[in-house]
Amino acid sequence: MSANNEFQSVTESATAPTTSNPYGPNPADYLSNVKNFQLIDSTLREGEQFANSFFDTEKKIEIARALDDFGVDYIELTSPVASEQSKKDCEAICKLGLKAKILTHIRCHMDDARVAVETGVDGVDVVIGTSKFLRQYSHGKDMNYIAKSAVEVIEFVKSKGIEIRFSSEDSFRSDLVDLLNIYKTVDKIGVNRVGIADTVGCANPRQVYELVRTLKSVVSCDIECHFHNDTGCAIANAYTALEGGARLIDVSVLGIGERNGITPLGGLMARMIVAAPEYVKSKYKLHKIRDIENLVADAVEVNIPFNNPITGFCAFTHKAGIHAKAILANPSTYEILDPHDFGMKRYIHFANRLTGWNAIKSRVDQLNLNLTDTQVKEVTVKIKKLGDVRPLNIDDVDSIIKDFHAELGTPILKPVNTGLNDLENSNGHASKKVKTSK
Amino acid sequence: MSANNEFQSVTESATAPTTSNPYGPNPADYLSNVKNFQLIDSTLREGEQFANSFFDTEKKIEIARALDDFGVDYIELTSPVASEQSKKDCEAICKLGLKAKILTHIRCHMDDARVAVETGVDGVDVVIGTSKFLRQYSHGKDMNYIAKSAVEVIEFVKSKGIEIRFSSEDSFRSDLVDLLNIYKTVDKIGVNRVGIADTVGCANPRQVYELVRTLKSVVSCDIECHFHNDTGCAIANAYTALEGGARLIDVSVLGIGERNGITPLGGLMARMIVAAPEYVKSKYKLHKIRDIENLVADAVEVNIPFNNPITGFCAFTHKAGIHAKAILANPSTYEILDPHDFGMKRYIHFANRLTGWNAIKSRVDQLNLNLTDTQVKEVTVKIKKLGDVRPLNIDDVDSIIKDFHAELGTPILKPVNTGLNDLENSNGHASKKVKTSK
Repeated sequence: MSANNEFQSVTESATAPTTSNPYGPNPADYLSNVKNFQLIDSTLREGEQFANSFFDTEKKIEIARALDDFGVDYIELTSPVASEQSKKDCEAICKLGLKAKILTHIRCHMDDARVAVETGVDGVDVVIGTSKFLRQYSHGKDMNYIAKSAVEVIEFVKSKGIEIRFSSEDSFRSDLVDLLNIYKTVDKIGVNRVGIADTVGCANPRQVYELVRTLKSVVSCDIECHFHNDTGCAIANAYTALEGGARLIDVSVLGIGERNGITPLGGLMARMIVAAPEYVKSKYKLHKIRDIENLVADAVEVNIPFNNPITGFCAFTHKAGIHAKAILANPSTYEILDPHDFGMKRYIHFANRLTGWNAIKSRVDQLNLNLTDTQVKEVTVKIKKLGDVRPLNIDDVDSIIKDFHAELGTPILKPVNTGLNDLENSNGHASKKVKTSK
Repeated sequence: MSANNEFQSVTESATAPTTSNPYGPNPADYLSNVKNFQLIDSTLREGEQFANSFFDTEKKIEIARALDDFGVDYIELTSPVASEQSKKDCEAICKLGLKAKILTHIRCHMDDARVAVETGVDGVDVVIGTSKFLRQYSHGKDMNYIAKSAVEVIEFVKSKGIEIRFSSEDSFRSDLVDLLNIYKTVDKIGVNRVGIADTVGCANPRQVYELVRTLKSVVSCDIECHFHNDTGCAIANAYTALEGGARLIDVSVLGIGERNGITPLGGLMARMIVAAPEYVKSKYKLHKIRDIENLVADAVEVNIPFNNPITGFCAFTHKAGIHAKAILANPSTYEILDPHDFGMKRYIHFANRLTGWNAIKSRVDQLNLNLTDTQVKEVTVKIKKLGDVRPLNIDDVDSIIKDFHAELGTPILKPVNTGLNDLENSNGHASKKVKTSK
């Protein structure tokens, strides 16, 4: 069939003004807390359960101060019942006078609650397994027993004048009626928050949205969510929970926690800044993310993942010629995050066979050489040819450009500026812990 | 208020039989392809755009064979127009006789299409930017021009008897009416697939679901989706796209690609196996994931992220005492993924202050020592005390247990089995590239 007869003419709206943020929350979500969320950082509780973690008192205090400076709303600490030192550390952090509220996380048991309320914390996070798996193989209690324990512990903690959260564990594998029933019960007696926990990392975004919306219709208190990352959805689930009406998200630095961890602080900030830029930028010191991640990565002896949102060594590196061309014209073409919001820089990777003449032209300008577009296209062909044979570095490209330029005999117009701007090759930017290209 | 008067009695359903897979697709989603999806692996196209990538011909062939053996449905290669060697490599891979169909990825332009169809590929993936950003700063064309070019290229590729996909670029920042209009046009002239691409990584799951469902009502061909991971949602977006009726997902090994990459093959397998275990296990060689990830990680000189789904060094490590207890009774309590499905093992991390007596009891059994539960609880207190002072390793714990046992004078019952089973300390399991605890 003929092309001209078949395709429909299409409307042209390239210049139409954008009146709202297209990456923001759906305006139909009147319950959404995307622009009004809070962070509970659990690096010093969930993060202590990461395989490599051992934080001494000094390190815990350093991490707590860094999180407080960043602006997290709550800092959650390991149960004072876990070990004698855990209790002392909890007391020490409570005495720091941080802006963030200090929480500790205990089993739903009066023995734990009596110790917790004496540490000086601003609130207690209570958790109990409600799935049939955990009820059968962990604590062996039925839902009536759970409800009775919960009420006793909650009323005791409230009597001490501090905040109380009640969370189920493994919420997505618990019976919905059981869950709603116990949440309604604890809401009536006045908990500050109820928690949903995807303890095994099985939940998907639409399940999360449904459960949070349903729970929102049953309780009047705030909803907190905790997502493990076993199936890679912890950031998306957190975002979708906020859309459904949850208010607080549990995070940890780099997501460290049991197994492969939970929603990472940095990754969630990447997600939230595109949806609620003003709120996020006004509330959190985003340029501190890299320092906090380095602090915790060093403490638990892991590398920052090469593909980490924001701080991964290539998060703001553009390579393909077609991308480089557009980025040079307007960074928004291929960037939803502005690296400068995080104290990071953008890089154009021009020393490779996928490069294009726009990227090379930018390099020629950096070298302060004078070539016409036709000449830049010619030298780009030479660079791509060598790039087909072996990996290139900046020196290779610069040599080719300079040789080409010398053969033309064109004079240098002004003194060479040796300080590279943002648009330098990414090889110079690779994290010290990540091997760089040869 | 009194506990007894206020809480409602709750139903008890711990023993009720589970008749369906609770992590599976929502039965209401009649359009869902969660149990009927296909994979387009783009490690050799999108992955070549990763900052550190340089694949020579031999390495490309090795990766293509590994992906074919794993069972991916399609392998997408860099455009033959990118460089002379790219064209030769494309031709070489087409001649391998793989089960997977071979695709190449080109701009929506006849110059590229004429070269592509001569390489021997089974299909051509055509892409063009449709957002106002890309139209203004990349190619500078309007929607009518795009539609005309698309029809010309599509009819040409179809005339050669090979598959053709038409994809917009930056779909989530494109005008919806423009998008649907052009997709409808290309569907009518018989493309095999239309593609949605979240080129900048801005999309969230509910947006994805809405767009895919809407598009599904407009076209009759398959829908393919491509998600960048800048804001950490690439796996969740892929899953939600399948729920909405998309059929094919673009992946790359470890997610390598422009910036911090796209939906990772391994992470998506983690997500899909919980939703469609029979389909995934019967179609893909899951135990090969680790080898393929190591192959690609070595080639691009990065470490496997410590928190990678499935293959991260701690993905199946359990640490907190309460987790260890339940895992020892039934792994499903704290695991949604079975490590054995991926040729991996489970570890109980017992050498730390968060340990519990059930984990230590398991270690006592491994050491073939004979202690009562009361004695195990006593020795656990000693271990936790030392764990409060400094990081522990297996030898520390074993020494404490053996000293305690020797003091009791209880004889060893049978020869010590020195081969540790799955439940060994995670320190012995840490990837060679990740620093282990001291």
